Amino acid sequence: MINKANLLRSALDRPGLIRVMGAHNGISAKLAERNGFDAIWASSLEISASFGVPDASILTMSEFLSTAQTMNDVTSIPIIADCDSGFGDASIVGHMTHKYEAAGIAAVCIEDKPFPKMNSFVESCQKLLPVDQFVEKIQAATAARSTPDMVVIARTEALVVGCGVSEALLRARAYADAGADAILVHSKQRTADEVIDFARRWDRPIPLVAIPTTYYHTPAVDLEREGFKVVIYANHAMRAAIRAMAETMSAIQADGSTRDVERTIASLDELFDLQGLDRVIAVRQ
Amino acid sequence: MINKANLLRSALDRPGLIRVMGAHNGISAKLAERNGFDAIWASSLEISASFGVPDASILTMSEFLSTAQTMNDVTSIPIIADCDSGFGDASIVGHMTHKYEAAGIAAVCIEDKPFPKMNSFVESCQKLLPVDQFVEKIQAATAARSTPDMVVIARTEALVVGCGVSEALLRARAYADAGADAILVHSKQRTADEVIDFARRWDRPIPLVAIPTTYYHTPAVDLEREGFKVVIYANHAMRAAIRAMAETMSAIQADGSTRDVERTIASLDELFDLQGLDRVIAVRQ
Amino acid sequence: MINKANLLRSALDRPGLIRVMGAHNGISAKLAERNGFDAIWASSLEISASFGVPDASILTMSEFLSTAQTMNDVTSIPIIADCDSGFGDASIVGHMTHKYEAAGIAAVCIEDKPFPKMNSFVESCQKLLPVDQFVEKIQAATAARSTPDMVVIARTEALVVGCGVSEALLRARAYADAGADAILVHSKQRTADEVIDFARRWDRPIPLVAIPTTYYHTPAVDLEREGFKVVIYANHAMRAAIRAMAETMSAIQADGSTRDVERTIASLDELFDLQGLDRVIAVRQ
Amino acid sequence: MINKANLLRSALDRPGLIRVMGAHNGISAKLAERNGFDAIWASSLEISASFGVPDASILTMSEFLSTAQTMNDVTSIPIIADCDSGFGDASIVGHMTHKYEAAGIAAVCIEDKPFPKMNSFVESCQKLLPVDQFVEKIQAATAARSTPDMVVIARTEALVVGCGVSEALLRARAYADAGADAILVHSKQRTADEVIDFARRWDRPIPLVAIPTTYYHTPAVDLEREGFKVVIYANHAMRAAIRAMAETMSAIQADGSTRDVERTIASLDELFDLQGLDRVIAVRQ
Repeated sequence: MINKANLLRSALDRPGLIRVMGAHNGISAKLAERNGFDAIWASSLEISASFGVPDASILTMSEFLSTAQTMNDVTSIPIIADCDSGFGDASIVGHMTHKYEAAGIAAVCIEDKPFPKMNSFVESCQKLLPVDQFVEKIQAATAARSTPDMVVIARTEALVVGCGVSEALLRARAYADAGADAILVHSKQRTADEVIDFARRWDRPIPLVAIPTTYYHTPAVDLEREGFKVVIYANHAMRAAIRAMAETMSAIQADGSTRDVERTIASLDELFDLQGLDRVIAVRQ
Repeated sequence: MINKANLLRSALDRPGLIRVMGAHNGISAKLAERNGFDAIWASSLEISASFGVPDASILTMSEFLSTAQTMNDVTSIPIIADCDSGFGDASIVGHMTHKYEAAGIAAVCIEDKPFPKMNSFVESCQKLLPVDQFVEKIQAATAARSTPDMVVIARTEALVVGCGVSEALLRARAYADAGADAILVHSKQRTADEVIDFARRWDRPIPLVAIPTTYYHTPAVDLEREGFKVVIYANHAMRAAIRAMAETMSAIQADGSTRDVERTIASLDELFDLQGLDRVIAVRQ
Repeated sequence: MINKANLLRSALDRPGLIRVMGAHNGISAKLAERNGFDAIWASSLEISASFGVPDASILTMSEFLSTAQTMNDVTSIPIIADCDSGFGDASIVGHMTHKYEAAGIAAVCIEDKPFPKMNSFVESCQKLLPVDQFVEKIQAATAARSTPDMVVIARTEALVVGCGVSEALLRARAYADAGADAILVHSKQRTADEVIDFARRWDRPIPLVAIPTTYYHTPAVDLEREGFKVVIYANHAMRAAIRAMAETMSAIQADGSTRDVERTIASLDELFDLQGLDRVIAVRQ
Repeated sequence: MINKANLLRSALDRPGLIRVMGAHNGISAKLAERNGFDAIWASSLEISASFGVPDASILTMSEFLSTAQTMNDVTSIPIIADCDSGFGDASIVGHMTHKYEAAGIAAVCIEDKPFPKMNSFVESCQKLLPVDQFVEKIQAATAARSTPDMVVIARTEALVVGCGVSEALLRARAYADAGADAILVHSKQRTADEVIDFARRWDRPIPLVAIPTTYYHTPAVDLEREGFKVVIYANHAMRAAIRAMAETMSAIQADGSTRDVERTIASLDELFDLQGLDRVIAVRQ
């Protein structure tokens, strides 16, 4: 198989920003690839939503892994798996890493919140894991790899829970020193100020990752200039799909037919093309 | 558990059209329920597409069943499972029926094409199974139920392959006489003429189902007046999602930020609400 | 579908001991039914072992549920699902209960240890959840049922961690008062003394369950006389399979053929009979 | 990840017989490795049996693949996946190969019977696929690989259906010429005569594989001397497990306790050791 972990490592080593699109199933992953993104974020928020359940450790690792594999098998760009808190303690993180590596996933990302996690944009229920416990998880992840290829990303939620940039830096340094390959510093502020402050003070040789969900007025080039190597658009595919499906269903109900929506939705031919139906027809004829 | 098969049977017995929305995962199923549809079509086209593969028996029964279960578990309306050709011969159809019944799925729909199937809107690769072989499948399905609750829908593709209304009627009668609970007569004409012709000549006591994908200018009320009991909008949720995701990704790539798409996609709050996050927060606080 | 939860409730209401056999897949479940057991224990130890991983919350709920469903679908006796600590906090237990109920599982059993759990026969790593937190889980489980049919069993590990019979009783009473349908009191002593002491002092109207893994010298009738309603042989099917497979493989390696083992293993005909192959042959011919 | 396909290819290139043990889950796979076998046969008969269903294309590719992955993830020897007829036509075989390769499975084996298949030891329901259609499947399999590593084994059932050695050779040559990496020639005779006859007349440069289920009096060394490179013990682990579980359950029922079986089954310590529990305990303490 093509080694997608190495593909991602090469991109991290080359100059230039890596743009990553969140997805939740095979078709959204394919669309991300077609639209020129460099990698896919197997978003736990999007995947949880796609199953119709909250993003709060309700789905198990099995569904997240299976969905990541589905995406991986129909695309040629790397998958970065959003693995929440690692689904449990360090021994579970070790098992998780082994399974994701065996499935050909290029990267796993774990965050320094306890299991069960709560989505970061929810005000309540947020707290951090002690640093040493999260360091153990990073060590378990890197030790569980059979080769050093797979990328292990450590995500700190220090800014999300309001602990400030110094605490975020302290934690990120510990995670980098423990062997993480990249640091994702998450924020839910409306501006990029705190993540930019973090980036300016960053003093370890591993790259930084941003998720500009709330500070969306700051374009990727600005984040790149401030020192970020990777930008993830973590939930917009699902949010786009929901709005469109809701409006389409509402219009169908109102009119009792689909004639009003035909022009605003993809054609069957576009759908068949995305699915790769031609290759099956070629074999079967 | 609530017996959704009985829920569907009651709706079939009551006056009034049953409006069914196609879906492919938990969130599209939830949106269908919120938008007032009476049941959900677990569309093999939509589900195949969601996995990024062609609608041509590439996915196995396992993924279709698992997806139908996911939808069933997060909604309170019945699921009608699009089971293609039944995934094999009569003994496989028997196994399939047992599994879907055990999973609480209200209805299964099988069609009179051989395995592996090809999507009905594809010109090539279409042929029909001999009537007696499909009758065996219907008998296997009805015999495999542990109670007579689950609805077995027989779908004829006679019009799709160009065999005409008389052949479609001959087949549909044989399927009704073999124990099918409803007949789905599929067509890919641009007008409803042939399905209306079929409905007018229908002479068995079980209800008719239409999928007005190509003859979308005919509203549901007209189909109801002509004798159809169920109308299925089989693929529009997926087509809406694809168009919206493609446009959103393209805009993000063009601008290097999500600021231009924020107003055209669902907010995080809408997303959390759909996922039912409040109930988890209530328990955790 | 046959309501297996009601089947189990009837058995709990009738006089007489309920004998339950642990199993880990479809074939061991079928063998349990053929050998006259009243129900099947979907053992987390056996299922974890069958996947080749430790019984320590390494497998997720998804594999446990999927395996329980597989067993349920090929047998006509109830499945009692060993759900460890409930796979997380009370909100996860609620989700779990909903999923197991939807899958037709007759009973779930949760224990008062924190997630991740460690097998009870391991000396180290054992501790109890505070009573009120486990009471919340029982309440979440009973509240998540759509009908009151499914049986919720509360298991206390108070004896296993060495807290004594009084603590076990205190906990069990709280669990009974919170709505549990039965109490499983686990012990790893070599004699049944402490579980018998517990049973003699039990003063709530719900039945008691024993797992005589270590105190195997006490036969089921003695446990029944002392007040136990249900006895579970929780891991012997897997232990029998392991011994037999290891000896068979070793013999094949030693001899370079299977001639020495043919008489000590099931014949192909026995295997085909257990699988129910005749019914498929009847349909296909 | 370690490339197990290359591991298998190296073994095929080295002198010496490759001994392969059939397995059906993680624990039987681990036992095969511990007992010194060179590879594991992910037997469709064993896996079907483990789910409690007939070996007749009742399970889908999804369960076979998922089980093969489970075995792969807990062992360090290659997995050879028994893929029956390839689960459908050539386009499905292509999809199958892509999925198995992505999952890290070292080899797939497909046979020249139509879908749905029937176990080879069943007298009735047996027929062969036309040669050209099976050649298409082999070509689809080899073309679907992203690298030439994964081993594609073509299995002919010509002897099983009674077509004789000449037909078997004709087919095997066509399969070799189409790109198969090895030929499995199956037989259900009580002696090895016909497979030995086949091997003596074999004139292509790819290795031969035997499954001495019925001709078990012929040891592996004799098969090796006659030209076979691989010998598979395809169903004995499951048959051993069934006999042992049935006897154990019967004894427990008879005695009302497990005291009589304790010495004939694996101890809990053996079980924990096989599961690798120590590593979890080490991390958690």
